[in-house]
Formats: sequence, C-alpha cells, structure tokens
Amino acid sequence: MIPKDHPRYRSLVVRERLAECAREGIVALEGLASHGRGEAFDYLIGEKTTESALLAARTAAAMLLSARHAVISVNGNTAALAAREIAELQRASNADVEVNLFHRTDERIRLITNLLEEHGVRVLSGTPERLIPLSHDRALCLPEGIGDADVILVPLEDGDRCEALRKMGKTVITIDLNPLSRTARTANLTIVDEVTRALPAITTACTSLEPGEGERLIASLDNAYLLRAAIDEMRERLAHALE
Amino acid sequence: MIPKDHPRYRSLVVRERLAECAREGIVALEGLASHGRGEAFDYLIGEKTTESALLAARTAAAMLLSARHAVISVNGNTAALAAREIAELQRASNADVEVNLFHRTDERIRLITNLLEEHGVRVLSGTPERLIPLSHDRALCLPEGIGDADVILVPLEDGDRCEALRKMGKTVITIDLNPLSRTARTANLTIVDEVTRALPAITTACTSLEPGEGERLIASLDNAYLLRAAIDEMRERLAHALE
Repeated sequence: MIPKDHPRYRSLVVRERLAECAREGIVALEGLASHGRGEAFDYLIGEKTTESALLAARTAAAMLLSARHAVISVNGNTAALAAREIAELQRASNADVEVNLFHRTDERIRLITNLLEEHGVRVLSGTPERLIPLSHDRALCLPEGIGDADVILVPLEDGDRCEALRKMGKTVITIDLNPLSRTARTANLTIVDEVTRALPAITTACTSLEPGEGERLIASLDNAYLLRAAIDEMRERLAHALE
Repeated sequence: MIPKDHPRYRSLVVRERLAECAREGIVALEGLASHGRGEAFDYLIGEKTTESALLAARTAAAMLLSARHAVISVNGNTAALAAREIAELQRASNADVEVNLFHRTDERIRLITNLLEEHGVRVLSGTPERLIPLSHDRALCLPEGIGDADVILVPLEDGDRCEALRKMGKTVITIDLNPLSRTARTANLTIVDEVTRALPAITTACTSLEPGEGERLIASLDNAYLLRAAIDEMRERLAHALE
C-alpha cells in the first residue's frame, strides 16, 4: 500500500505495524497517538541514539543488574514494537517482565502476554492487586512483580503512573522520547531514545560493563543533565533544519 | 475513563475523540499517529496561535478570497476535529469543500461527507478522476473541485500530495504543526498551528481584512520566514522547558 519510494517509508511502515496491532487489540487506539508524539521527538534528536542516551542506557543496565528485584513493565506499544528486544534484555539482566496497561482489559493482557511469550519472554502471572496509588484499574499490579520490585523499567509510561511508582518508593527508569514529559522529569533515570534502539543499548551494556563501572555510573547519575542534553540536541537540530 | 484531574486531560480527551472516530471509520488508524506528531509540535509552540501563525492565517484568508476558485480539501482527521470550523470557514470564504483521503475508501468518503454535512458543510460530489500526478487512488480528485481550483487549502496534508498539487500548478495553503515537514516546506503558505485554532483564525480574517490589506499580505508572503519564526518559537520554548 505504501510506495517504497515514499521519503518517510520506514516511519510509515512502523505506523502500519502499530495500526495492525491496534486492529488485533494489542495496541490501544490512544497508543497510536502516543507513538506519533514519540515520532516527532525522535525526528528532533535525529532518529539516532545520542551520546547522552547511551550514557543513560549504560546507567540503566547498572541499575537493573544491581537491583534486589528488577521488573520490566511492558505495555501494548512496547510489546508491539519490541517483543524480541524485551526477551533479549530479560536474558541479559535476569529481570522479571510484567504486563501493565493504562487501558487495561483482561483480553489485552492475554494478547500481549501471548505476543511476548511467542518471542521468548517469560511473563509474570498472578492475581493483580490495587497496590499503585491511583484510581480505578490503573492501581493494579502483581504483588510479586511491580509490587515487590525495587527497580522498575517502564518504557513509554504515563506521567501519573510514573509519579505513583515513585511514591511507592520504587526506583523508576523510563524510556521516553519527550524530555519535557512528566514521565521524563519524574523518573529517576530517563533514556531519551526510541524504544527499539534503547532496549538493545541496555542489553549490550548488561554484558559489557567493566568492573566498578556500574557503581560509578549509578553514583554519578544526574537525570537533569541527561534531559538537558537531549533538549540541546533538539534545539541544535531545529536551528539547522531549514538549511 | 480519563480522570478529570489528569494534567493532560484536554489532550487525552481529543485523543479519545479521534480514537472514537477511528472506531467509526472516519479517521484512519494511521491518522491517529499523525495526530500524535502534531501534538508534540503543538506542545513546542505552547499550544497557542503564535504571532507568525496569525499573520499566515490572515494571508490565507486573502488568498482564498482573491482566488478564481478556492477549494478546501478535507481528510478524516480534519473532519473529526473541525467539521464545525470548516462549515464556518466555507460560509466566510465561499470556498468549495472536497473530501480527499490518503487512505481512500468509498465508505470513508461517505462517512466523512455525512459528518461534514451534519455540521452544515456543503460538500462537492461527483465522479473522481486520476488527475493528481501520484500512484494508485491518491491520484483521485474531482475535476470540478481540486481539478479546477487555483487555490487549495489542505489542512494536515501528506508531503507527496502537497508536492503533486504544486506540480499541477495549484497554489497550496497548508495547516501543519511541523514546520520541518515536506508539506510545510513545499506549500506556498504554511500555517504552523493546530487545526481548530487555525481555521477560526482564517474565518475571522475573511471578515475583517481592511481594504488593500489582502493585496499587501499576498505581495509580502515569505513562507521561509513563517517557518523560521515557528522554529524559533520552538527553540525558545525548549530552552526554558526545564526551568
């Protein structure tokens, strides 16, 4: 349908993949708009992993590896775009994976769990409880998963939930292309990068940190600096955009 | 479903409206992602009509009013978000309205026509022909509509089509929140503003241009300046975003 010579072919193909997953019920329709927001910011960082994003990814690896109990919280968009990358990160980090949805239904939980398992992810199962300080179903998580975790990686998270997880005393790592979002500013560590680039960067770091490097990265974590660096990239790119 | 105290309540409600229209077949699923891209850029211009966007809107009014045959080309997103605003602009400018879709099906044309007519828009009907220099159904338009027009307002248009319309010798006015898009850079005049703010701004200008003002606005049109002004707004906002 999309002509191969369309200048934005790749971006349109990814959109079609998400639209297909929306038809199947894996991605919420609202998730398609969220993806578009990300695309815009990705364009502004040049659709590549910046130096500061790589530093953030290595710090994330150090935090996952040194956690008492690390959990990766996966939503529909993350599963649709990066099921394989989640499986690889799980193998490298030994983190648990829990499906956790803003637009939660049992059917979507089942579809997303199936998709992840097809790609080799071990997905936590159990009976969710209202443990997150939020209204309605957004309070639900597994007591033995997010409920017990000390470190949580939440790619593409809503700002409310990110804040609520912080209030529970969790250390929150997020992947968010918008360095101005509440999620980006509330998390302990924000990787400003596209999810299919950021996850492999964390996975690679998990197996390549030098002795002592993890401790040093964690000790020198400065999330305001990481956000500022991403913003500076965007400003620079905008400055030269019409040349 | 969305709690009223959510800080991004308005944006989430608009997304739900589009998601609802997607369920009904008015908005293409791919259109939801496009909307998200727009949201990101709207955030960066401060979710308001900037001074340069207002100048662009007044220039657009002058061009529509002085056209031999002005046509407003409406797609699913525009109809879903701004059917009433299209009706008002049509009354003020006396332009024709044609439904023209990137993801074209007879069913979507019918649904969007109905939605527009419910809001008081007079929609052109007829037998489309392959007049636009593009492959597949994206070549289709009405000979007595876009085919005959000298000035076309295409809110939220794809870059390929914008270019093809220029190749046909049409004067193209677009509304596009991304000042870096091919559409924004290919159009004769780009209004970098959100569609439900930009359309009423054009409508107001249609009834408030001073004698001679229209000619002056058209003579001094400098689209590169308008794009640069929008980019400067975004850079400025990014610079102060973390304060």
